[in-house]
Amino acid sequence: MHDIRAAARHLAGHVRQTPILSSPALDAIAGRRVLVKAENLQETGSFKARGAWAAISQLSDLQKELGAIAYSSGNHAQGVARAARAHQCPAVIVMPSDAPTAKINGTRALGAEVVLYDRAHEDRDAIGAQIAQERELTLIKPYDDPRVIAGQGTVGLEIANAARPLDAASAEVLVPSGGGGLLAGIALSLEHDAPGMRARPVEPDGFDDIARSLASGTVQRNTQLSGSICDAILTPEPGALTFPIIQRLCGPGLVVREEECLRAMALAFHHLKIVLEPGGATALAAALFHPGTLEGDSVFVVATGGNVDVPIFTRALEYLDQ
Amino acid sequence: MHDIRAAARHLAGHVRQTPILSSPALDAIAGRRVLVKAENLQETGSFKARGAWAAISQLSDLQKELGAIAYSSGNHAQGVARAARAHQCPAVIVMPSDAPTAKINGTRALGAEVVLYDRAHEDRDAIGAQIAQERELTLIKPYDDPRVIAGQGTVGLEIANAARPLDAASAEVLVPSGGGGLLAGIALSLEHDAPGMRARPVEPDGFDDIARSLASGTVQRNTQLSGSICDAILTPEPGALTFPIIQRLCGPGLVVREEECLRAMALAFHHLKIVLEPGGATALAAALFHPGTLEGDSVFVVATGGNVDVPIFTRALEYLDQ
Repeated sequence: MHDIRAAARHLAGHVRQTPILSSPALDAIAGRRVLVKAENLQETGSFKARGAWAAISQLSDLQKELGAIAYSSGNHAQGVARAARAHQCPAVIVMPSDAPTAKINGTRALGAEVVLYDRAHEDRDAIGAQIAQERELTLIKPYDDPRVIAGQGTVGLEIANAARPLDAASAEVLVPSGGGGLLAGIALSLEHDAPGMRARPVEPDGFDDIARSLASGTVQRNTQLSGSICDAILTPEPGALTFPIIQRLCGPGLVVREEECLRAMALAFHHLKIVLEPGGATALAAALFHPGTLEGDSVFVVATGGNVDVPIFTRALEYLDQ
Repeated sequence: MHDIRAAARHLAGHVRQTPILSSPALDAIAGRRVLVKAENLQETGSFKARGAWAAISQLSDLQKELGAIAYSSGNHAQGVARAARAHQCPAVIVMPSDAPTAKINGTRALGAEVVLYDRAHEDRDAIGAQIAQERELTLIKPYDDPRVIAGQGTVGLEIANAARPLDAASAEVLVPSGGGGLLAGIALSLEHDAPGMRARPVEPDGFDDIARSLASGTVQRNTQLSGSICDAILTPEPGALTFPIIQRLCGPGLVVREEECLRAMALAFHHLKIVLEPGGATALAAALFHPGTLEGDSVFVVATGGNVDVPIFTRALEYLDQ
């Protein structure tokens, strides 16, 4: 918890305190009040700007001078690129060649060197390890890093602060989850600042490693590693650092279908006037379309990101029955 | 000014303090810092929720019991419907039948009775006057009402407050303008709270009555009253109450083309992750595509609303060259 408050001080003035949005129409669909923490409005279009800043800002001067490296389909990439540039730290980002164009271009626009690899035929870790060794770069992991977890956890501090005046201090907090960095960070924040609130992971159908790991009590892997529009939250298994925290503090996982994510994106467009990416809409989808699995008369959902390409977004809008 | 502070007290807890958004990519296009006051994230999807609340909340008990009536293509309509419902006040909204579907349905969903009229062949004022007389309804004008102007002016208070920590206390404030209620209210707020800042109207090509009125010193009318995608800000001429305020306090008007509005919508989608309607994107379009007509190294733009139908939004996204 100490680390999250320290991270909040590092982040102050460098990332945004994002708003909580809501709409009577969404409340009516969900049958309870739906409070949307709009991290898509965060710098770089996702919450990843927080953890990346927390990690990069705490590198040594020598580490900053040599540079940082990260693996990412795009949101962590942009967060690291932005934080690195602000600290005069060179950044290399290893991205799959099938990452959304918006994310690849966004990462380049932030000044990072992007190295693309073929997800099907190349070994990301080998490519990255070679570059890191040659140039003496520091690896900024996307979730299994205490500084990154603490940075993402600042989302939880803001939710806890917002919950009190909203009379929602016993609400569940639904969190789109890949490796579990954001989920673990939020859970730690809530444990201390809002003990009546409970974080729960939301994952796409077929990539529900955290839900299954929680249910079974042991780490479970996903059988597939691609093939979902929810690119931001596809990870092989829960993190080694994150899972023990999640297991200790979080409620059962929720699983949503791709079509539900697209519908949630359409409803967020229509009723909240915000742009969400599929992975970033999973928690909203769970609140809207799986209300029977939730407790309480209010629910927080974290809308984790909005870095979506136009074809996917227009596909989502086709679900809108105006 | 006194009235705007009173309005702010009436509005507290009932409308949102909207965030100021920005993006390095937009700054680069505009050649200066672009600070976007995101009123599309306001309740009902536009700033009109402010003025409507200010007006309805100050009706007498008898007036509330009898009900309110308004004319609107949709944003004022939804603002009045929401405020009326919260005050147990019946609301009748007279809307053109070619208003965006999202706005007609949104108004109905907020509990108002919608009366549609044919813009080309029916007299809106005659229809409204007859209903108002029969039912003894109070007319809530969209801009020529001191309480409405004061309510919209609270946007200016928030901009003035935000400008200080952002070191933007001498920035221009670009305001999408129809009848000029928001523009006049913001100008009054800035006069008192941020005298170094100056509000300027932005209008669509062909509907630049305020710009021409300011330039000539006398009230000028538009020759056309429909035929623009910027439905929210098409008015015949500046308001009788608003124009003297605008003339005394505002800088010269800016005029943007429809295509520039669509491009601004696409860039707001891509870089800010927000949904804007064409009229609500005019000020952003002016900042991005007419930088030579602006002064200073920072500019505020008010993004007034996001109530847009899908076909227009997808048309805007076609301008995005990812």
